[in-house]
Amino acid sequence: SVNPDLASERRTASFGVEKLTALLDGGAEQTQIRRAVVEAIESDPVFSRENQYFQTQNERYEAAVKKAVHLQKKMHEMEWTENGPEFKYIYRALSGDVAFLLHRVFMRSISVLGSDKQIAKWIPLATQHKLIGSYAQTELGHGTYLQGLETTAVFDTATQEFILNTPKISAMKWWPGDMGRSATHTVVFAQLYVHGKCYGIHPFIVQIRSLQDHSLCPGITAGDIGPKMNFEHVDNGYLLLKNVRIPRENMLSKFCEVRPDGTYVRQGSQKINYFTMTTVRISLISDEVLTPLMKACTIAIRYSVVRRQSKLKAGEQEAKILDYQTQQEKLLPQLAAAYAFHFINNYLQELFNRGYREIQRKNFDMLPELHALSSGFKAVITQHCTQGVEICLRACGGHGYSLLSGLPSLYTKILASCIYEGENTILLLQTARFLIKCFMAVSAGQPVPPSVTYLAAVKHGRCPAKNKLDFLSPDIYTEAYQHVAVRLTGSTAAKLQDLIQSGVKKHDAWSQCTVQLVQAAKAHCHYIAVKNFAETVEKLETKAGIQKIMKHLCDLFALHGIFSNSGAFLHDGYTSAAQMDMVTASYLDLLAVIRKDAVPLVDAFDFTDKSLNSALGSYDGQVYQRLYEWAQRSPTNQMSPAYERYLKPLLHNTLSKL
Amino acid sequence: SVNPDLASERRTASFGVEKLTALLDGGAEQTQIRRAVVEAIESDPVFSRENQYFQTQNERYEAAVKKAVHLQKKMHEMEWTENGPEFKYIYRALSGDVAFLLHRVFMRSISVLGSDKQIAKWIPLATQHKLIGSYAQTELGHGTYLQGLETTAVFDTATQEFILNTPKISAMKWWPGDMGRSATHTVVFAQLYVHGKCYGIHPFIVQIRSLQDHSLCPGITAGDIGPKMNFEHVDNGYLLLKNVRIPRENMLSKFCEVRPDGTYVRQGSQKINYFTMTTVRISLISDEVLTPLMKACTIAIRYSVVRRQSKLKAGEQEAKILDYQTQQEKLLPQLAAAYAFHFINNYLQELFNRGYREIQRKNFDMLPELHALSSGFKAVITQHCTQGVEICLRACGGHGYSLLSGLPSLYTKILASCIYEGENTILLLQTARFLIKCFMAVSAGQPVPPSVTYLAAVKHGRCPAKNKLDFLSPDIYTEAYQHVAVRLTGSTAAKLQDLIQSGVKKHDAWSQCTVQLVQAAKAHCHYIAVKNFAETVEKLETKAGIQKIMKHLCDLFALHGIFSNSGAFLHDGYTSAAQMDMVTASYLDLLAVIRKDAVPLVDAFDFTDKSLNSALGSYDGQVYQRLYEWAQRSPTNQMSPAYERYLKPLLHNTLSKL
Repeated sequence: SVNPDLASERRTASFGVEKLTALLDGGAEQTQIRRAVVEAIESDPVFSRENQYFQTQNERYEAAVKKAVHLQKKMHEMEWTENGPEFKYIYRALSGDVAFLLHRVFMRSISVLGSDKQIAKWIPLATQHKLIGSYAQTELGHGTYLQGLETTAVFDTATQEFILNTPKISAMKWWPGDMGRSATHTVVFAQLYVHGKCYGIHPFIVQIRSLQDHSLCPGITAGDIGPKMNFEHVDNGYLLLKNVRIPRENMLSKFCEVRPDGTYVRQGSQKINYFTMTTVRISLISDEVLTPLMKACTIAIRYSVVRRQSKLKAGEQEAKILDYQTQQEKLLPQLAAAYAFHFINNYLQELFNRGYREIQRKNFDMLPELHALSSGFKAVITQHCTQGVEICLRACGGHGYSLLSGLPSLYTKILASCIYEGENTILLLQTARFLIKCFMAVSAGQPVPPSVTYLAAVKHGRCPAKNKLDFLSPDIYTEAYQHVAVRLTGSTAAKLQDLIQSGVKKHDAWSQCTVQLVQAAKAHCHYIAVKNFAETVEKLETKAGIQKIMKHLCDLFALHGIFSNSGAFLHDGYTSAAQMDMVTASYLDLLAVIRKDAVPLVDAFDFTDKSLNSALGSYDGQVYQRLYEWAQRSPTNQMSPAYERYLKPLLHNTLSKL
Repeated sequence: SVNPDLASERRTASFGVEKLTALLDGGAEQTQIRRAVVEAIESDPVFSRENQYFQTQNERYEAAVKKAVHLQKKMHEMEWTENGPEFKYIYRALSGDVAFLLHRVFMRSISVLGSDKQIAKWIPLATQHKLIGSYAQTELGHGTYLQGLETTAVFDTATQEFILNTPKISAMKWWPGDMGRSATHTVVFAQLYVHGKCYGIHPFIVQIRSLQDHSLCPGITAGDIGPKMNFEHVDNGYLLLKNVRIPRENMLSKFCEVRPDGTYVRQGSQKINYFTMTTVRISLISDEVLTPLMKACTIAIRYSVVRRQSKLKAGEQEAKILDYQTQQEKLLPQLAAAYAFHFINNYLQELFNRGYREIQRKNFDMLPELHALSSGFKAVITQHCTQGVEICLRACGGHGYSLLSGLPSLYTKILASCIYEGENTILLLQTARFLIKCFMAVSAGQPVPPSVTYLAAVKHGRCPAKNKLDFLSPDIYTEAYQHVAVRLTGSTAAKLQDLIQSGVKKHDAWSQCTVQLVQAAKAHCHYIAVKNFAETVEKLETKAGIQKIMKHLCDLFALHGIFSNSGAFLHDGYTSAAQMDMVTASYLDLLAVIRKDAVPLVDAFDFTDKSLNSALGSYDGQVYQRLYEWAQRSPTNQMSPAYERYLKPLLHNTLSKL
C-alpha cells in the first residue's frame, strides 16, 4: 500500500509520466528494452544488492567477482550480446556493482593501440576469459601529467625483450582496477628506452599472475591499495616491477614500433586515439554521474513528501517538508539540473557521433572543439551533480546520513567522478585554453568552431527585461548567460595580454590568470547548457503537458544559476539590481510551481526499488517500516562480545567497590 | 628524515610557530598541559587508532567500549579529574573515538532537569558506572520539532506509575547514542498525560536493560539502527516501549511535577535550562568542527608541497602543486577560515561565560541574543567547515579519496554536525527571526542587544576604496560586510511587511521569505566573524611576526568572502565593478603571500602524526612510503576465497571449451 502522502502527489501530475519516461529513454521501444533487462537482472538473486550496506570490503569484492562470472552465463541465457540493444542497460541495471570492468578497458586499449597481429592474438583470449586484463597507467607519484610517469621499459636487443622496472617508490603503479587481486595481465604505460635514448610513454602488455595457480609472476609485487570512500567492490591495486622481461611483440604497436635492431618507427595518425580518450569523458556522464543524481533526487523528493515536520500554520497537521520554501530551494534546482544535463548529454553524444564520422573520413577539424567540450562538461557536470547529491543527502536530515537511505553511497561514489578521467580543475583549464585561443581568433576576424562563434557577439547592451515575467523568456536569460561568458573570457584574455605586454613571461602570465580562466570555462559550459535546454524545450511536442513542465524546469535551471552567481551578472551592469530582484522573485515563484509536479518528475526517471536500494526512496513511501525492518537485519544487532568482555566487568567492578 | 620538499617550507617561516601554537591554545602553559595529555593517551596502545580504517562497524564499537572502560583506569592513574585542567584535552586526544559519550549527557540532563532528590539518587550511581545512561529524544518520525514527539507517558494514580508507550512506528526512539547495545538506562522524552489531559513533553528515567545479565527489560524492544556514514564506534539505537511502567519518582521534576493525586505543578524558571541547550551548540564547535577542518588543512597543505605535478615552466622540475594558483585558491581560504572561526569561537565562549554569570544573577536579558548567535554560528561554522574539509579532500586528488589519507573520515564525520543539535536551515531561521525583530525595534528607535546595534547604521553610501591596497584595510571590508548584512535584513523585512500589508497572513508571509531570511542570517554571522577577526588582529602582539601573518589571513578571509559572494556586494552599487576587480586582484595577491607560510601555519595547529592518522599528512611528509606500507596491512591483501570459487572455474571453463 502506498503512503497516502505520496499517493496524493501522483494524482495531480500535470503531465503524462510514462510519456516523459519514453522521452528520457529516447523512445517507448527503448523503455521496453530497458525494463526487460532490469527485470531479468533484478529477479536473479545473484545480482541482489540488498546486503550491500552491511558488507565488508572483502565481501563486496567477492560478490562483485561472483556477479561478473554469473553475468557471462546470464548474457548467454538471455541471448544478450555486446552489440545488442540490451547491452547498454546491463551495467546500469547492476548499478555498476560488478568486477572486471577494467577487463573491458584492457581490451579496448589493445583494439585501439595494438597492431592487427596483436589484436588477432589477444582479443580472442580476452573475450573467452582465458586471461583477466587490467590497465596500469597511474603511478603513486604521477597522475594527470603522463609525461612524468617513471616506470621504464628498456629494450634489450640481445634477447629481443623489454625489461620493465618501477625504479622508485613513486613509480609504483597505483589505483588500477581489477589489479589488486584479480588480473592476470595488464597494459603497463612506461618510458621507452632504446640504446639509452628515451622515446616517451608507450603501452606494454605484461603478465602479472600465473594462469595455472594465480601466483605472482617473477619480478612482480602486487596487491590491493586498501580501503577507499567507495568502490569497495573493486580491487584497485598496486604493482612493482623488478626486471620483468616481456617479448618485443608485447609493446602495443599500432602507432609506434621498435624493430628487432632497435630502430624506433612511428607510423599512422594518433589523432583517432586522442579522440577515443576524449569520448571516455562523455561516455561516463550518463551512468556514473546523471544516474546517481537522478536517484538522489528520487530518494530525497519522495522522502520530503512523506516526512512531516513543524506546522506552517497553528492548528494544522505538521507540514510535508517539501512544502517549505527552503526545502524546495535545496531539491528542485537539483531536479532541474538533472534534466538540463540529461539533454546536454544527448547533445554531446550526437556531436561526438558526428565527430566520429568526420574523423573516419580523415577530417580532424572538429577535434579541438570536441576536446574542449568534453573536458569542460565532464568537469562542470561531475562537480554540479556531486554537489547536488550532497544537497539531497543533507536535505534528508538524520535519515539521509544512514547508509540505509542509499544517499551516502551515491555521494561517496559520484565524488570520485570529480577526480578520475582528468581532475576537474585541469580539465577546465584545457577548455579555457581553447576559449582564449578562439577569442583571439575571433577578435582577429578569423573563423572559429560553431560552439564559440558567440564570442564575436560582444554586445555592450543591457538586459532588456522589464518585469519578473520577462525572466521566463529563454531569449532573455540565454542572452544574459552569453553576455557573462563573453565578458569573462574577454576580460581574462585582456588580463593575459596586459601581463605579457608588461614583460611577464607567457607561462607566468597564464599561471596568474588560472582562477579567472576556470571561471570563464565554467561560464561557457553553463551558457551552452542553458541554451541547449531552451532549444530542446522548443522542439518538444506540446501534448501530454510535457513541453510545459520542461519549460518550467528550464526556467528554473537558468534562474537558479543567475540567482546563485548574481555577481557575474551584476558586475558590468548588464543586469541591474532591480532586474536581479525580478530574477529572485521569478525564481521563488517557480519553486512553488514545480513543487506540485516534483514527485511525478522523479517517478519519470523510472527507478525500481531495487535499483534505488533505499529505505527512504521506495515507490510506496513506507519509509519508517523499511528503516526499522532493515536496521534489525544489521550485523550490529548480532551478539557482541563487548558485554562479557568490558561492560560486565565494568558494572561488576563498581558494584564490588561499594 | 623529513621530505626535503617539506623541510624547505619550514625554513622560511615568517613567524614563530611555537608562539602561534601558544596563542591558539590560550597560553604556553595550556600548550604544555595539552601535550602532556596527548603524550599519555598516544603512548597507550589501547587508545591506538591505527587499524581504524580497516575495522568493521562491530570492531569499531567494541574498541570504543574497551577504550571507554580503559579511560576510567587511565584517568585514575594519571590523576586527571573531570574538573581538572587536563580534562578538556582528553576527548580531543582520543579524536572522540570512545564510547559512553551519551552517559555524560544522561548525567547532565539529570543535573539540569532533576530535583535535588533525583540528583542525589542517580548521579552517584552514574558516576560509579553502576548503570550506563543514554538520552532518548529523537523519534523515527520526529526530530527538530519537539512538540511533535509521539511517545506517551500516562500517569496511573492507582499504582503511582507512569505507563510509557511508543504507540506508532514513527514514535519509536531512533538515533540515541550508546542505546543500541550498551545502555542500561535512558532519559525518555514523552507527552505527559494525567487524567486524559496532555501536558506536553517531559523527561522520564527508564531502565531498558537488566543490571544482572543485560537482557532487555519487559516491554522494551531495542537495538542498533545499523550502518551510517561515520560514527561506526557509536551504537546509535532504536527503542520501542510497550506499557513500560516506571515509578512516579522517575519523572525529572525540577521544573514540573505530578503529585500523587495527579495534580500537575509547574515550578521555577526554565530559562537556565534553555541556556544550557543553547551552550551545547557552541561547545561542539571546537572539537567537532574546528579540529577536523584544521586537520584537513594540515593534511592537504603538507601533501600539496610534497606532491609535484606538471611543469610551470618547460625544462624545470615538476612543480609542487601548492605553487599553482588554483590549488592555493582551494586550500588557503580554508586555512584562513579555520583561524577566523577559532577566534570567533573564543569570542562566543567569552560571551557565553558572561551570559552564564548574568543568568545566575537572574538577569535573562542576554538570552535572545545568545540564542541567535549560537544558532547562527553553529549553522554557519558547521556548513563552512564541512565544505572546507570536502575541498581539502578533493584537492588531494586520488590519494585524498583513499581512507588512508584520513580525509574521508574527517569529512563523513564533520558532515553530521550540519544535522545534529539543530538542523542548520532551521537554526538560521531562528537567527533571522531575531534579526527581523531587532531591525523593527531599531527602526522604531528602541534599544537592541550590542551585536545588532549596527542595524541602525543604515548608510546609503558607497565603498570608499580607490585601489586594490585599500581593500587590505579592515575598515573598508568590515564596513562592506556590515552594509550587506543591513541591506539583506532590511530588504527582507520590507518584503515581509509588504506581503502582510497586501493581505497575506503573517505565517504565510514568513514562509515566502525564508530563502532570503536565511541569506540575511548568514550575512549577519559573516559580518561578525570578519569584524571579530579584524579586532583580534589589532590586539595581537606585534613580535615574532604573529600579527603580520594573522593580518594576512584576516584579509584573505574577508576578501575571499567578497570574491565568492560578489553579487551581494555589487547589488545596490555599494561596491562598483571596478572595486570588485580590485578585490579580485588583492585576493589573488594574498594567495601568493600566504602560500609562503602555509606549512608553518598548519604546523602551528600542532597535531601529532597519530592524531592525524593520515598517510598524506605526517610531519615528515613521507607520503608514498606510508601509503604503500599501510596498504600492505589492509585485510584486502589477505587470501580471498574469490580465486578458488570464481576465478579458477572461470579461467578453467573457457580453457576447456577450446
